Amino acid sequence: MKLSQVGELGLLAELERRGLARRIENDAAQLGDGLVVTQDALVEGVHFRFDLVSWRDLGFRAAAVNLSDLAASGAEPEALVVTLAVPIETDLDDVLELYAGLNEPGVPIVGGDTTRAELVALSVTALGRSERVPGRGGARPGDLLVVTGPLGAAGVAFRNGRLARPPLRLSEGRQLALTAHALLDVSDGLAVDAGHIAARSGVRCVIDLEHVPLAEGADIEDIGFGEDYELLAAVEEPGRFHVIGRCAEGSGVEIRLRGEPVALTGWDHFRKQDPDLR
Amino acid sequence: MKLSQVGELGLLAELERRGLARRIENDAAQLGDGLVVTQDALVEGVHFRFDLVSWRDLGFRAAAVNLSDLAASGAEPEALVVTLAVPIETDLDDVLELYAGLNEPGVPIVGGDTTRAELVALSVTALGRSERVPGRGGARPGDLLVVTGPLGAAGVAFRNGRLARPPLRLSEGRQLALTAHALLDVSDGLAVDAGHIAARSGVRCVIDLEHVPLAEGADIEDIGFGEDYELLAAVEEPGRFHVIGRCAEGSGVEIRLRGEPVALTGWDHFRKQDPDLR
Repeated sequence: MKLSQVGELGLLAELERRGLARRIENDAAQLGDGLVVTQDALVEGVHFRFDLVSWRDLGFRAAAVNLSDLAASGAEPEALVVTLAVPIETDLDDVLELYAGLNEPGVPIVGGDTTRAELVALSVTALGRSERVPGRGGARPGDLLVVTGPLGAAGVAFRNGRLARPPLRLSEGRQLALTAHALLDVSDGLAVDAGHIAARSGVRCVIDLEHVPLAEGADIEDIGFGEDYELLAAVEEPGRFHVIGRCAEGSGVEIRLRGEPVALTGWDHFRKQDPDLR
Repeated sequence: MKLSQVGELGLLAELERRGLARRIENDAAQLGDGLVVTQDALVEGVHFRFDLVSWRDLGFRAAAVNLSDLAASGAEPEALVVTLAVPIETDLDDVLELYAGLNEPGVPIVGGDTTRAELVALSVTALGRSERVPGRGGARPGDLLVVTGPLGAAGVAFRNGRLARPPLRLSEGRQLALTAHALLDVSDGLAVDAGHIAARSGVRCVIDLEHVPLAEGADIEDIGFGEDYELLAAVEEPGRFHVIGRCAEGSGVEIRLRGEPVALTGWDHFRKQDPDLR
């Protein structure tokens, strides 16, 4: 059996079943004292290419995608730990730009490792503290589904030959985490991420695309691209956030456009084998 | 300026000078509450090759080199976070073996990330707690230099076409951390690692090779190979550990064999470009 056959979620399920890794909620692990730890890797040719992103934007992106996982845990970030693998003929100035980007969100880099490699790869660990981590398993029928901002910016940028700068939704995450029944970030695509809530919570997520706020220049297809890094929450009261759907009895995700079902595809690192970046 | 010209230590110094990353002591970062965080990457073709190591041993190694950094901080390990980049045509069973090896030291894997890549790369973050982290900067003239076990096993194994299993020196680390003036693990080679103590502490490290305990089959040259992952400490009282030298006034490292100076080379990931693994 190859990884391409079981997929990323299949691998994670198998690791959990055998007791080889604990369940990963929100892509973030919780330790004692409210400590939350996230780790995300960016690999050249898989997650980015240098014709789409500058060294500085790559650094910002590596920090931001991890901070997004902290935001989805309602955590206040405290530190980043950065491992950089890079060809030895890389310019020092490029690496310094990368670290400048990593520092842009203002969370200190307290350690890490550097090593040579054929391609550039970055692994970032973010540490923070949260009083309450909603996770993905608490949504109830009747909850409203809300997002913290417009979707589709990542898809628009990619069509225009670049990678979008992810937003930082840390304060929104801390606010939502106080009461949300489920909370995560939209990284794999709205349908896939809503599917995580549906599967873990034992509910059906119904999303009305006409209510999804769209980024400038985005159309409906761009919503499926993922990598928008807005937060998606199941809440009783929407507060200031955009209501895009609701939770119902049942299972799975139902994506509708003016009442008609439509399909939105998402992303699995091991299954998709496009020759292109995605 | 290329990384190959400035080297790994040059890069780290430049990052620190510009405020882009904090000083890395013991390859471990300290946060509040005694929390210690380490991160180390293993990249195929740089740190390992599959003709030298099995999937299971690779997993154990990835855990062990990080736990070695915790040991050098006197920390009790609490959790591992693992990022795995792997080709999608990898067998699921091989990946499960890798995670079985990662679990061998008994420290739970609480989260992480998986992604596809052309080659196998692993980044592990280890979290632990320590009441006292000696660091590298407190050695004083008159201190004794001690090691926790024999050196050279990694060199012997490599000459025999495999990678040695690193030892776990967690209890020794906790014991030494209570009183040591400086403490680190021997990963880059005895001369290089002693050089870290000398540079940070402002002392001269004098090592008598005839007092260095040798692993089975090892000779003096194997000591320079590094990757033995024994602990090296500057202490007032050696206790049960092997005294291999002392700290004196001055700077730098003096390696002697029966009183005569000899050279031992060490390892810098960006400078050395051997066609071979090291």
